[in-house]
Amino acid sequence: MESNSRPPAGTDFDTARQFARQLRVDSIRSSTSAGSGHPTSSMSAADVLAVLVGRHLRYDWDRPHSDANDHLIFSKGHASPLLYSIYKGVGVVSDEELMTGYRRFGSRLEGHPTPVLPWVDVATGSLGQGLPVGVGVALAGKHLDRIPYRVWVLCGDSETAEGSIWEALDKASYYQLSNLIAIVDVNRLGQRGPTELGWDIDAYTRRAEAFGARVLTVDGHDLAEIDDALTTAADGGGAKPTVILARTVKGRGFSEVEDHEGWHGKPFPKDMAVRAIAELGGESNLVVRGPLPDAAAAPAITPSEPSTSSFMPRYSPGDKIATRKAYGEALTALGDQYPNVVALDGEVSNSTYAEQFAKAYPGRYFEMFIAEQQLVASAVGFSVRHYIPFASTFAAFFTRAYDFIRMAAVSQANVRLVGSHAGVEIGADGPSQMALEDLAMMRAVQGSTVLYPSDATSTAALVRAMADTSGVSYLRTTRGAYPVLYDEDDTFPVGGSKVLRSGSADAVTLIGAGVTVHHCLAAADRLAQDGIQARVIDLYSVKPADSRTLHAAVAATQGRLVVAEDHHPEGGLGSAVTDALLSEGAQTLRLAHLAVRELPGSGTTEELLAAAGIDVRHIESAARALLAEG
Amino acid sequence: MESNSRPPAGTDFDTARQFARQLRVDSIRSSTSAGSGHPTSSMSAADVLAVLVGRHLRYDWDRPHSDANDHLIFSKGHASPLLYSIYKGVGVVSDEELMTGYRRFGSRLEGHPTPVLPWVDVATGSLGQGLPVGVGVALAGKHLDRIPYRVWVLCGDSETAEGSIWEALDKASYYQLSNLIAIVDVNRLGQRGPTELGWDIDAYTRRAEAFGARVLTVDGHDLAEIDDALTTAADGGGAKPTVILARTVKGRGFSEVEDHEGWHGKPFPKDMAVRAIAELGGESNLVVRGPLPDAAAAPAITPSEPSTSSFMPRYSPGDKIATRKAYGEALTALGDQYPNVVALDGEVSNSTYAEQFAKAYPGRYFEMFIAEQQLVASAVGFSVRHYIPFASTFAAFFTRAYDFIRMAAVSQANVRLVGSHAGVEIGADGPSQMALEDLAMMRAVQGSTVLYPSDATSTAALVRAMADTSGVSYLRTTRGAYPVLYDEDDTFPVGGSKVLRSGSADAVTLIGAGVTVHHCLAAADRLAQDGIQARVIDLYSVKPADSRTLHAAVAATQGRLVVAEDHHPEGGLGSAVTDALLSEGAQTLRLAHLAVRELPGSGTTEELLAAAGIDVRHIESAARALLAEG
Repeated sequence: MESNSRPPAGTDFDTARQFARQLRVDSIRSSTSAGSGHPTSSMSAADVLAVLVGRHLRYDWDRPHSDANDHLIFSKGHASPLLYSIYKGVGVVSDEELMTGYRRFGSRLEGHPTPVLPWVDVATGSLGQGLPVGVGVALAGKHLDRIPYRVWVLCGDSETAEGSIWEALDKASYYQLSNLIAIVDVNRLGQRGPTELGWDIDAYTRRAEAFGARVLTVDGHDLAEIDDALTTAADGGGAKPTVILARTVKGRGFSEVEDHEGWHGKPFPKDMAVRAIAELGGESNLVVRGPLPDAAAAPAITPSEPSTSSFMPRYSPGDKIATRKAYGEALTALGDQYPNVVALDGEVSNSTYAEQFAKAYPGRYFEMFIAEQQLVASAVGFSVRHYIPFASTFAAFFTRAYDFIRMAAVSQANVRLVGSHAGVEIGADGPSQMALEDLAMMRAVQGSTVLYPSDATSTAALVRAMADTSGVSYLRTTRGAYPVLYDEDDTFPVGGSKVLRSGSADAVTLIGAGVTVHHCLAAADRLAQDGIQARVIDLYSVKPADSRTLHAAVAATQGRLVVAEDHHPEGGLGSAVTDALLSEGAQTLRLAHLAVRELPGSGTTEELLAAAGIDVRHIESAARALLAEG
Repeated sequence: MESNSRPPAGTDFDTARQFARQLRVDSIRSSTSAGSGHPTSSMSAADVLAVLVGRHLRYDWDRPHSDANDHLIFSKGHASPLLYSIYKGVGVVSDEELMTGYRRFGSRLEGHPTPVLPWVDVATGSLGQGLPVGVGVALAGKHLDRIPYRVWVLCGDSETAEGSIWEALDKASYYQLSNLIAIVDVNRLGQRGPTELGWDIDAYTRRAEAFGARVLTVDGHDLAEIDDALTTAADGGGAKPTVILARTVKGRGFSEVEDHEGWHGKPFPKDMAVRAIAELGGESNLVVRGPLPDAAAAPAITPSEPSTSSFMPRYSPGDKIATRKAYGEALTALGDQYPNVVALDGEVSNSTYAEQFAKAYPGRYFEMFIAEQQLVASAVGFSVRHYIPFASTFAAFFTRAYDFIRMAAVSQANVRLVGSHAGVEIGADGPSQMALEDLAMMRAVQGSTVLYPSDATSTAALVRAMADTSGVSYLRTTRGAYPVLYDEDDTFPVGGSKVLRSGSADAVTLIGAGVTVHHCLAAADRLAQDGIQARVIDLYSVKPADSRTLHAAVAATQGRLVVAEDHHPEGGLGSAVTDALLSEGAQTLRLAHLAVRELPGSGTTEELLAAAGIDVRHIESAARALLAEG
């Protein structure tokens, strides 16, 4: 077999073999020294990675941020000993760092890879996510960057039980991502015993082929077979993603544990480690490098700043416009000025209004169909390639992708999520379509930004702000059309709020966001008829919340607050308000918290807001009750 | 073809044909009268459903809760006009209710089906969920009930883009669910245009077969072909689930919309409806019933009450035991006394300790491998069949199934979820494995119960309580071993708390749950050395929270509260405390809220708790700072 392979780089097979031994030895040494980690899951994939890194991966290790580099994603993030041993083997991490840093406090060599390391694109460790993100990176490479980098993803066999793996392969074949190569380390053993499919390579083959992949199968410990498969995979000439099924042995190289159950996620005790290293031929400090990319390759799309400061859509106060529609218009305007804005949607673009962008910039719109996990994962992949992705679906259906959203934050990805059709406001479709947990879910994400505008003008401003917002940002839009509240030149900084009514005689504060802002205003009008002055705050920035304005309102209205939200009572607007207020010193609060507490059904918007107790009448009543208490 | 089919019931083809017409007419009438709904998605599946309901579905419509009935799940829940028209057609819903109730406020005929209707097992409408839940029902039928009911699931073609569909088929074939029949209505058109695969029946066939299903393909408008396929599917003789691919036409029966884009989710205007109904032959009130089940069939497992009151494991104060281990022991003890307790896990049962139950009761343990969506969906399916399911995985990975958890609440399912390895406490594995959003996520679920015990004794008590808790309940367990705090005879009601330290001179209240309870106790000890008395509350019931005890603490300690939680600051323990306190009248609070605010890395438990600022030292400092403020 070896004679047939065309070595694409200088690392010969003898060196690759020695490199593979070193990767195993270092995986053992690092995990034993740390007292935790996954040596056996690293050892099964060592041969494949030695050949890949030594002979195929086009990567300038001294320029990890080069646009031309291939991408290497460990979807099986628990094989971090292998990944970090590769970093030692290519000379970018010292043996000392590997031995004293792995899994230690303050070290960048964390238990599972994260982008605190410059060679890591995305955090992995929640299985079934690396491949979907790889699809996003490959989408960018093939359809936007148009650079011939390849995206190599090392998958575990266990993680193919995750539906997200099949969403990923489905989209990879739909978008003809011949630049994507998934290598499945079929080592037969999961955490607690055999995997579902064991070494049934035929079953894996049927599934991957059925989902549109070109499948190559290899003995994952035969370097020449591996090399042939990688050579074929790297051709990029076809219109299909490639899946390499590597039949491997868990713990390969140390006879005491090879293919044994009970050794998942366990470092070897020191005496075993000594025997294993001896069996593998001892420690070494080989440095291996593979081929370099064409450093001149540059993305086809060059980011640029807007050519004008006033390019966003403008709306006239009083006009009735749904914020979801304003989103579509704002996104399209952004797309005109930012060549690197990209939009994705989950087969509801005519509802979210992402279709406006799709029509204007079809080359930068990616339909993810009904696959919300892949929707978010693709956005993360675009973020890896420094695009500005906006991903939209019904707000309720982002719950489908919560693990991906959580991990996007760990990945320090910059992704913008836009959920339409929030709350009971949607009306007749019923509770399955009503996002009533999304604010809680999004607020709890590390470093997130959560925005919920009440009108078209603020929506447009916030969409523009999101383009410059790092981390996970979320915009909640509303189904129905409501009057524009703000003047064209009003500003809406993230972390701000708008005081829509205020005066020196304010007796109570009404706080809303989105649809409830309109009900707060109407309630204030009713109260005013009885001479009760109510301050009204539009808390469009739910996270971070404007604690200064909230504190001022508390001081002005003797702590009397009515918070009305189209969301369950836990973790949403009410929590945003109380968290902001209670973060500084003693506070005396008289809070009426109106939220959706019972399971809603169908009905009109008005019926459902009333039934939930969050409409104008309930806000007015709650304010009067607070005042009656004193 | 018709001559070859063996009619299993009295409804002949002519009647079935007329029934199908009526289903179309009523789908149109109901949605047009409501002004919203999905007539065209109903019309494509009307022929298949007419034959199924008229000739194959074994269902006693007058006894919807009969254990012997087949199950009919509309995974494409938006085809509710079709489902409700069937209910009219079998005579359990009047034409008047259909015409005046559909999608109206207060009606049980909601926009998408929910179990407020006695014939609906689970709420659908979030696509890709009905089939996974059907897998759970079929698991119960085949492996527990051992009654020959069949589970018929109507799927849309668009929803096959959801990975959860493939998780479902994978488990259906793994568990040889020959009692499961998925009917895919391949009508080629999604919401905003063509589906990914269109009418490529071969592509669907390859995928379903690769995932282990027996595939039957039919012209979905040829009643005889349909009948043959349903007859074959119903044999239950094989060891595979069946997938029927029905090639259909969206809007079938009304030439103006047949196979036209732009008609998804749109009722026909009245004039069009008139023309459509005329083309379909006019209104009718046919009543059709199919075969009855064997009413004598009874589940193999009969629920029974515990034979003794003291069967739970008992622990001695001071012993160090991880709450995750106590979970495994408590669950096993429950399993001994409750023959209808069932356990499921996502391939981490040796970490969650569900393996203890699996070893003791292998027939009632179901391995879901790494497929958390299916894990929760299966639990919902077991709930449909009145089992008491406990589903466990790492707490972080329940984020993967949030949409299913949310929908379980809409389904009024009784499911118990148990998440281990919560928070930074887990140590070296790093942030991908750390649940830091789970309390927020679970609290925001409608009607949920959220529990987070600090020791083995309370864990065992709460596991027992969960068996009798309706709705979605969640138990958060901890990786490390900590001392047992409570006496064997202490009680831990849901909604309660434990005051571990209190006295007449309490100056500050320290509130924790789980691991932070131990740090609160240690902080109280340190403060006591300086003569500062601290009240310590173990808020093991995060939702509902014990507002009485919290109010008493606020009153006793002048509003000084330190809340420490191993969770992000949003929506977790801190919110539970402030929500409980602010729900009644004016409150003056001095709150120090210690939570995980920055992105953690790897390290030891002690290092990470300290770095997050939630350990004994920070609790002590926060208490002193509150006291210094006055």
